[in-house]
Amino acid sequence: MAKKLILITGMSGSGKTTLANKFRVRGVAVVTMGDVIRGLAREKGLPPTPENLGRLATGIREEGGDDAVAKLCVEKIDKMPDDIVLVDGIRSIREVEVFGDRFEVASVAVFASQKTRYARLTARGRSDDPSELATFKARDDRELSFSLSNAIALADYIVLNEGSLEDFEDEFVNLLTLIGWF
Amino acid sequence: MAKKLILITGMSGSGKTTLANKFRVRGVAVVTMGDVIRGLAREKGLPPTPENLGRLATGIREEGGDDAVAKLCVEKIDKMPDDIVLVDGIRSIREVEVFGDRFEVASVAVFASQKTRYARLTARGRSDDPSELATFKARDDRELSFSLSNAIALADYIVLNEGSLEDFEDEFVNLLTLIGWF
Repeated sequence: MAKKLILITGMSGSGKTTLANKFRVRGVAVVTMGDVIRGLAREKGLPPTPENLGRLATGIREEGGDDAVAKLCVEKIDKMPDDIVLVDGIRSIREVEVFGDRFEVASVAVFASQKTRYARLTARGRSDDPSELATFKARDDRELSFSLSNAIALADYIVLNEGSLEDFEDEFVNLLTLIGWF
Repeated sequence: MAKKLILITGMSGSGKTTLANKFRVRGVAVVTMGDVIRGLAREKGLPPTPENLGRLATGIREEGGDDAVAKLCVEKIDKMPDDIVLVDGIRSIREVEVFGDRFEVASVAVFASQKTRYARLTARGRSDDPSELATFKARDDRELSFSLSNAIALADYIVLNEGSLEDFEDEFVNLLTLIGWF
C-alpha cells in the first residue's frame, strides 16, 4: 500500500507547526522541511538565525533545483515505517508534485492574515523568528518568491487560524473528516 | 470621509461573483475588474472568449503596467456616490496597493480547491469559462503568473466555498462581522 502524506503549507506564523502537532498527538509521524534546513545549518556550524536559514534554503534550491529539499524528504520518508506521514513546510507546487509522484497526498494550507501572523511571530521569540516588521516583510517576500503562495492557492484544503485555539481545534476536526483517512 | 473598498480576489470558479452578489443585495455597489476587460473587448469588436479576454488582460498590463486595470477602476470609483464599494476580481498585491493608496480597503480571498473549481466551471457554461481541463489549467497558470496567489496569501480575510450554499452564506455573515463596516 502506498504511504499517504499530509502536506502542510502556509506563510510564517500562520500556525503550520500548531496544526502539525495536532496530527502528531493523534500518532501521525511528522517530517519538517525546516528541520532539514536546520540540520544542515548545524552541520555547517551556522547559528539558526532567520538570515542563515533563509540563505541556506535559497542556496540548496539554487544548487539542487526548486525540489531539492522535497527530494531529501522523500528519501527520509521512504525509510520510515509509517503508513501516514505529515510533511510540514511545503513551499511550492513543485514540491507538492515531487511528493505526489511517489505518494498519495493531501495538501493543506493554513491561513492567517499578515496582521495576525506578525502579532504571533513577535510574541513567540523562536530563534528564527523576526522581531521587526521589516524583517518580517522581507521573510514574507522571500517565501513568496519560492512560489509559496501558489501552493496555498492550489491547496486541496485550507484551514483558518485567525481566532481562538478552540476555533482552530474545530477547524482541525473538520479537516480530519474532509481528508477521510482517520 | 474616505470611501471604503471591499477587494475580492480568488481563483476562477472559487465563488468571487457569488460573494459579490451577496454584498450587492445588501446595497453595496459592485465594480468588476473583469467587466472593464469585457468592455474593452466590446469596444474592439472581439467576442468575449477566454482566449480574447485573457489576451486583452495581459496586453493592458503589459502596456500600462501591472496596475493599469486597477487605475481604470479607481477613476470609475472616484465618480461614484457610494461610501462603500466592492471591487471584484483583484489579481495582484500591486492592485491592492493601488486601491489602498486612495481608499480604506479590506481584501477578501475566496477559496475553493482546484477540483471543486473545475467541477463548477464546467457545469456553468458562461462564455469565458473553459470547458476542458487543459484550458482550465492554462487559465489557472495565467492567473497565477499575474501574482494572483500572492493577493490570496496576503488577504486580510479568507472565506471558504467548498460546501453548500448555506455554508457559504454562514461564511458571508461571519465576514460581515469581521470587517465591521455593516
